Amino acid sequence: MLKLFYNAGSIALASHIALEETGVNYEGIRLNSAILEHTLPEYLAINPKGRVPSLVTEHGILTETPAILLYIAQRFGSDVFPPPADIFDLAQLQSFNSYLCSTAHVNHAHRMRGKRWVDESDSHAIKAMQAKVTRNMQECFALIEAEMFKGPWVMGEDYSIADIYLFSITQWMEGDSVDINDFPVMKAHRAAMLARPAVKYIVDKHAA
Amino acid sequence: MLKLFYNAGSIALASHIALEETGVNYEGIRLNSAILEHTLPEYLAINPKGRVPSLVTEHGILTETPAILLYIAQRFGSDVFPPPADIFDLAQLQSFNSYLCSTAHVNHAHRMRGKRWVDESDSHAIKAMQAKVTRNMQECFALIEAEMFKGPWVMGEDYSIADIYLFSITQWMEGDSVDINDFPVMKAHRAAMLARPAVKYIVDKHAA
Ligand SMILES: N[C@@H](CCC(=O)N[C@@H](CS)C(=O)NCC(=O)O)C(=O)O
Ligand SMILES: N[C@@H](CCC(=O)N[C@@H](CS)C(=O)NCC(=O)O)C(=O)O
Repeated sequence: MLKLFYNAGSIALASHIALEETGVNYEGIRLNSAILEHTLPEYLAINPKGRVPSLVTEHGILTETPAILLYIAQRFGSDVFPPPADIFDLAQLQSFNSYLCSTAHVNHAHRMRGKRWVDESDSHAIKAMQAKVTRNMQECFALIEAEMFKGPWVMGEDYSIADIYLFSITQWMEGDSVDINDFPVMKAHRAAMLARPAVKYIVDKHAA
Repeated sequence: MLKLFYNAGSIALASHIALEETGVNYEGIRLNSAILEHTLPEYLAINPKGRVPSLVTEHGILTETPAILLYIAQRFGSDVFPPPADIFDLAQLQSFNSYLCSTAHVNHAHRMRGKRWVDESDSHAIKAMQAKVTRNMQECFALIEAEMFKGPWVMGEDYSIADIYLFSITQWMEGDSVDINDFPVMKAHRAAMLARPAVKYIVDKHAA
């Protein structure tokens, strides 16, 4: 059976929701953050990056949210995620997800994970990074609203893995001190997402 | 005709090599870094992110290296880039490219683009980021060699867009003060890449 390793509050939420949406059989395995379980040898044997999510399949282990989401959609999800019409549409979907992964998620990570990029003991630099997170996230959401979001879903008429990924990033808005009322498209999108039973179920599970 | 917008020394090298490898007709448009042309309104109308690469196609504009590479491979490249055998193999390819985009490239960017994440005038924080780039890039290459690189090419027997993307990131090793001799797999891979006429041709074009 598929196994998804996740932490609460993490980007693993996206892969978790995607699995739940498809109805495929899977086991969600929540790591114990209190003991930083994602950094322990047993987990590093699954994902040497020491990050979540990791998806264990019968063919091997997958990491990286854009790749896991693509796998879930193509392998189990054609009912709930209509396949992109052509090569260009698939590339556009991957482009959106790549932006979330390389820019939006990375901007957010500078609030809690600044020690990836500066010496952990350098509290001045750590705070300097934290100070810019709100503005950087606002810029991302503004760009998404103005230039990328087609409506009613991210990619237009069809619900897709991009919606799940975006939703998972908007979960961080409050912690990143971004006021959702400044982003009406994101606000409506979040409401539409939370109206989906699979989304609500997994969000509640992560919050528990 | 396809148009690729690029800067010399940038990650646009990857998309440029991929186009050249396929033999498709395209126009490469080099932006003028001296006037920061990628930040001017005319270019922002093409790519509102103000980054390179951007690929203009007859269907619309694509940004984000993992998406552009996927598009080029699927649309024009089946001869030179044998399509992944199945959904899992495609996801693994996208996973590798996603790691380069969200982790390796981002680590590198902290050397010259620290102002994305801290106030530009905070020279202490800017220097703190620069100080960690070498170590972070070493960690990425070590992980790639130990855990990801299958050989003889990144994904195994078949040459793929992952090879082009990895090669483009290893172009930064010297500037990032990473000694290639510490990474024998990367060193051999770079030599194999530079032996390919399309790779050599585009590398020389960017260096000119
Ligand atoms: N590029 C990866 C990033 C994964 C990632 O950074 N996950 C975070 C949680 S949101 C994590 O595991 N952090 C743990 C740590 O840094 O110790 C992806 O998109 O899946
Ligand atoms: N995630 C994007 C990143 C593109 C990117 O950051 N490009 C850099 C060059 S390597 C750029 O345009 N930088 C210009 C700037 O930051 O002003 C991708 O993979 O294509």
